[in-house]
Amino acid sequence: MFDRATIVGVGLIGGSLGMALRARGVAREVVGVTRAEASIVSARAARAIDRGTVDPAAGVAGADLVVLAVPPDQVVPMARRVAPHLQPGALLTDVASVKAEIVESIEALLRPESGPAFVGGHPMAGNERQGVAAASPDLFEGTAYLMTPTPRTPRGSVERLAGLARALGAIPLEVEPAEHDRMVALVSHLPYLVAAALMGTAGAAGPAAGPSLLGATRVAGSPVAMWAQICRLNREPILDALRAFRKELERLETAIADGDRLDALLEAARRARLRLGGAPSKGPDKG
Amino acid sequence: MFDRATIVGVGLIGGSLGMALRARGVAREVVGVTRAEASIVSARAARAIDRGTVDPAAGVAGADLVVLAVPPDQVVPMARRVAPHLQPGALLTDVASVKAEIVESIEALLRPESGPAFVGGHPMAGNERQGVAAASPDLFEGTAYLMTPTPRTPRGSVERLAGLARALGAIPLEVEPAEHDRMVALVSHLPYLVAAALMGTAGAAGPAAGPSLLGATRVAGSPVAMWAQICRLNREPILDALRAFRKELERLETAIADGDRLDALLEAARRARLRLGGAPSKGPDKG
Repeated sequence: MFDRATIVGVGLIGGSLGMALRARGVAREVVGVTRAEASIVSARAARAIDRGTVDPAAGVAGADLVVLAVPPDQVVPMARRVAPHLQPGALLTDVASVKAEIVESIEALLRPESGPAFVGGHPMAGNERQGVAAASPDLFEGTAYLMTPTPRTPRGSVERLAGLARALGAIPLEVEPAEHDRMVALVSHLPYLVAAALMGTAGAAGPAAGPSLLGATRVAGSPVAMWAQICRLNREPILDALRAFRKELERLETAIADGDRLDALLEAARRARLRLGGAPSKGPDKG
Repeated sequence: MFDRATIVGVGLIGGSLGMALRARGVAREVVGVTRAEASIVSARAARAIDRGTVDPAAGVAGADLVVLAVPPDQVVPMARRVAPHLQPGALLTDVASVKAEIVESIEALLRPESGPAFVGGHPMAGNERQGVAAASPDLFEGTAYLMTPTPRTPRGSVERLAGLARALGAIPLEVEPAEHDRMVALVSHLPYLVAAALMGTAGAAGPAAGPSLLGATRVAGSPVAMWAQICRLNREPILDALRAFRKELERLETAIADGDRLDALLEAARRARLRLGGAPSKGPDKG
């Protein structure tokens, strides 16, 4: 599918992507761009890349797929840095969980009609760990792979990214960039902030933590730097989501205080959760 | 450790308890009390009980351990029903996640100095499923087993319940009943209500649900009846917990809006979560 895939940033997502591209024969060669020489050694040892470099310009030369898997606030600076070195037919994509600003900035950098094309990407995979040591070639299996093309994006490039997503075992879904940001504010950024607030409230009662607290707050243990960036890059949709959530919470609070309508509210939540799917836990989540 | 253990209510917790008592040789015989004859057949087939009855009075006769594993609002009525039939040295306990009202009511029923003794119990185990089909003899392994004795509770009975908890692989912890209710409002009831509110807010964006939403809301899929009872039985501590949580959420909201102190708040939550422990997920929680 690809001759040379270059992954800039070989952490949890970038490393898992490299492993999957290699293990599934999606790319003939996987090149990793890291910040330090030592990271090349560990990325190779983890079978995430074939070879590596600390020079982004050299790394993307000759690549027909370039994935920017750097932290969200570094995507645009990195795109600016590698853009002059991309080959004309290359597909450029990223994996950041915030899209509107990134897509707009990178589209302004590239001229899709006459060179490499950018398609915003956001694989909805990951866990609370980080680094290539936590990477897995199966990370994307069965997950949604959100793609955020714009009217300027060549359809052929969207199809190539969809093909990549399918080759990883993921399900490609298209969504408009601003709509994407509103949606992930609800399904990803809000749950993280709620987990952080739960820790602030219930963390001190730790020794008696039950399965629901452990399950609900696991994501609060993930590295702060990326989430703080996300909160800055996606501020308005996140604030909207927090307001909507607080209203929902106040409805429950009133229902509990009044002893009224509570069962109906909880039942609606239960049905929504069952529709959402996801495997039930196999046993107690003892964390 | 026990000659005859009677479990009243053979669902997820009662069934798991029966399986564990039998598999670990903690009781010579396990008797199940169910509401329907058909439940006796399935409980026996699941190896949760040796024999069963639909008559609580007959079920507890001759038992030296009686565990009331019925829904929270049925614990006191069931205790009232079986009390006259308990043998003098019997240990009576329950598994409800709300304790103050239950403990007070049952202590008023029994006279510990001259007959069976009651010790409130709350194994912090379970998952979002229900019924003996979801039961497992390892459900309690490594979990906290909260015990809520009062100054009236004979110490020997507390020790017997602690021994039972240890035999199940759980860690016995003593806590005063009202303190218990405040604590579980924070670590168990609040996470459930937050999960329900998250579903109310983000449920419609289901197709793109990421691992943190799935993990944070799993408990919202559990049967409503028990949670609605808990909200009624533990109303004030739960309302206090909801208020504390909303304050915490407002702090985060302000920090995001002002772009100030956010990293410090998130980092404090992360450290609290890491202190809480619990195994990191082995890979992506694709739900």
